[in-house]
Amino acid sequence: MLTYDLQNVEGPLYLHIYQCLKNDITEGKLQAHEKLPSKRTFANNNGISTITIQNAYDQLISEGYIYTVPKKGYYVSDIAKTAVPAVKAKVSYDIHVPKKDKGILYDLSYNGTDPENFPFSVWAKVSREVMSNCKTELMTPSPAQGIKELREAIAGHLHSFRGMLVDPNQIIVGAGTEYLYGIIVKLLGEEKTYAIENPGYKKLVKIYGEKGIECKFASMDEKGVMISQLNEVKADVAHICPNHHFPTGLTMPASRRYDVLAWANERSERYIIEDDYDSEFRSEGRPIPTLFSIDGCEKVIYINTFSKSLTPTIRISYMVLPVHLANRFYENMSFLACTVSNFEQYTLAHFIKQGYFEKHINRMRLFYMRQRKSVIDVIKKSALGERCSIRENDAGLHFLLKVDFNIAPRELNQKLLKRGIKINALEDYYLDSGAHEKNLYIVNYSMLNGEKMKKILGVIEEVLNN
Amino acid sequence: MLTYDLQNVEGPLYLHIYQCLKNDITEGKLQAHEKLPSKRTFANNNGISTITIQNAYDQLISEGYIYTVPKKGYYVSDIAKTAVPAVKAKVSYDIHVPKKDKGILYDLSYNGTDPENFPFSVWAKVSREVMSNCKTELMTPSPAQGIKELREAIAGHLHSFRGMLVDPNQIIVGAGTEYLYGIIVKLLGEEKTYAIENPGYKKLVKIYGEKGIECKFASMDEKGVMISQLNEVKADVAHICPNHHFPTGLTMPASRRYDVLAWANERSERYIIEDDYDSEFRSEGRPIPTLFSIDGCEKVIYINTFSKSLTPTIRISYMVLPVHLANRFYENMSFLACTVSNFEQYTLAHFIKQGYFEKHINRMRLFYMRQRKSVIDVIKKSALGERCSIRENDAGLHFLLKVDFNIAPRELNQKLLKRGIKINALEDYYLDSGAHEKNLYIVNYSMLNGEKMKKILGVIEEVLNN
Repeated sequence: MLTYDLQNVEGPLYLHIYQCLKNDITEGKLQAHEKLPSKRTFANNNGISTITIQNAYDQLISEGYIYTVPKKGYYVSDIAKTAVPAVKAKVSYDIHVPKKDKGILYDLSYNGTDPENFPFSVWAKVSREVMSNCKTELMTPSPAQGIKELREAIAGHLHSFRGMLVDPNQIIVGAGTEYLYGIIVKLLGEEKTYAIENPGYKKLVKIYGEKGIECKFASMDEKGVMISQLNEVKADVAHICPNHHFPTGLTMPASRRYDVLAWANERSERYIIEDDYDSEFRSEGRPIPTLFSIDGCEKVIYINTFSKSLTPTIRISYMVLPVHLANRFYENMSFLACTVSNFEQYTLAHFIKQGYFEKHINRMRLFYMRQRKSVIDVIKKSALGERCSIRENDAGLHFLLKVDFNIAPRELNQKLLKRGIKINALEDYYLDSGAHEKNLYIVNYSMLNGEKMKKILGVIEEVLNN
Repeated sequence: MLTYDLQNVEGPLYLHIYQCLKNDITEGKLQAHEKLPSKRTFANNNGISTITIQNAYDQLISEGYIYTVPKKGYYVSDIAKTAVPAVKAKVSYDIHVPKKDKGILYDLSYNGTDPENFPFSVWAKVSREVMSNCKTELMTPSPAQGIKELREAIAGHLHSFRGMLVDPNQIIVGAGTEYLYGIIVKLLGEEKTYAIENPGYKKLVKIYGEKGIECKFASMDEKGVMISQLNEVKADVAHICPNHHFPTGLTMPASRRYDVLAWANERSERYIIEDDYDSEFRSEGRPIPTLFSIDGCEKVIYINTFSKSLTPTIRISYMVLPVHLANRFYENMSFLACTVSNFEQYTLAHFIKQGYFEKHINRMRLFYMRQRKSVIDVIKKSALGERCSIRENDAGLHFLLKVDFNIAPRELNQKLLKRGIKINALEDYYLDSGAHEKNLYIVNYSMLNGEKMKKILGVIEEVLNN
């Protein structure tokens, strides 16, 4: 007869009984096909309710430890027939999580959004409005391409800011450009050869690599990527930043734009990915028409993000597909779940439609322009001023600093890192080992200002003098 | 001498001048290498400021239409050398966006979250708190695996709800399970053979297909997926739902769990993906230990989502990797940007840590239990009651309805669709064309209730009688 010590049991009684029975079964005290007491007998013997026993038996049945024969009762399963459970190996929790750079006070290698510059109060207000007024919409799954309201708002923005005429159905919204690149790779076919600019955004090699694509490198001249280079590497797809190249800051002139389009039109499988990552912050003059705008033959995929214009931490990017590729997306990939939450899609849609996005961009454009001026002024007036010159073209969030220091970038980089400053040399962005112009450094200034720059220059001077 | 009509110009004057000059250049009125007037001459002749001319010239230079020779002046570029722009083909905006099912009043094919059941006010409150108190954190990029606070909160939840002991660094957060499957495919290598359960969640075939994986189908018996089937299809990776199988509702007993683990341990390349998509809503008894918990040999990848427990529209899922796979992730994929916004990661982390998630689940478990009871009661008491029986096992958000109607599922489905009701037969979830048990329908009841079920049954009766 089964009797267990049911005094001072912690937690639900049925769980305790379940555990006792399970132990007896796995340890062989209760043998295969042995009959268990009826619920009532078990309950009476232990002075507890039959419901408790029922619950314990149910659990054991659902886990396969006992079975029931209708009108007869409960029996122990033959767990010997069960494969022997894997011996609990000693699991080591030795997980090597990559360490963040620690002690970085000034990071010139990255353009983030300073917490003071994100429009928190407006964003919170719009987000609250959306949660009050759009409950049903928030609970209705987004189509693969993103919700209509957001795509309409983006189309409106592209029209007024970039002069682009775009059908909202050409727009695909996704959680970051990396995710969207994956969709492009699937849309165009994985056997394509991709070329990226040299120098260029190095991370693209890894990102495309993770998607099974080995990137080729196409060198640039003073107008941007060279057509001869695209031909030499036998590129099918050219991923380029014609509007404000990273890291050189170059803007591709119209003549080269038409050359690139002509190159793409030579073969049906060729495409251009126009990465327009920071076009919002061109500070003077009319922005140059995008490749997408002057493309008449559905060769250009335009891609952009809210990482620079709002914050990299919001994870909303979008691309504009040529019509035939949009149709290919809807035909083959519309089963995908959109990767951006409805809450943020609707909040952003309302944020744009109510004019807050435009205001924010205008405010930030002015802010960054002043920031750049003050940073550059400080450099020019500093003790190092005569040894430095600036290369910039009124756009984006970074400029190049040409110096006459006789120190290898790697050495300077290491010495500065120890002092809490992170800065990268242009050389680091070349993807080949050729002879490239030296002594150029990239200054991302979205989180800098004159005061900070003074301190940074002080440290650089100290490093150079030691 | 250049003179343009500068009266009644709309928009900035410099843009107008830029446009006039550009037209003259592209139309050949201004010829290659022709000298342009100096800024001052041009300005004086037209009675405008030199700044305006400067801006127009700058824009033309940056677009490549003109060039400047230092100390000499401005000259027209040789645009004839430029490749001829592609003729603007007539772009058709004929985009075929997949249509949503229209006029669906009752959808039994899908478990969404009723807007009345999402905890909007608490979510809004927590979101507001996060935006007030965590500004710096919100602007600091999330590591690839997701922010620490959220992974800690999830580890705590898994411990208290599932008895799982998990290091937060084993957890990877992503925008939906589809995205995470992609990471798994990359982690395990693309040459692996994946098996999914038959019947099963059909969409997996498409999702894995999009990632280059052709799924094999492993049939189930009354205990779940059959080991013989996993061997027959030569599976390396078994993607299974042992805790509440979709669509059968089956819970895999302990004996089969150990069999599956033993299978995985036979070869080093074998893995199990344990899809625990709706474990939170097991309404009675203690949840069965997960495969992950009883796995001693790092063979199980546990994957779950907040789609059922909060809403499918929030796009936050996570997986728990065995330690060696977590290390592989950190080594090879930590350069990826996390696909979930910081705003929602922090909001969810606080929502869980402050106990709201547990409260919400408990409330919803009770709510869904009552919902199921009322729906089943209505079925039993209805005119069709005697022709129906229910198969359910106290878990998840769906049950099976066995009927004795002599109508092909496809026909019933079509007739009901016309009347605004969507319901799928179990047969539709078999991935092969074998002989399967007929006349079973799946009732997803998260958005149903007794009243609605009455109306649905009325329509079904009407359809059957016609």
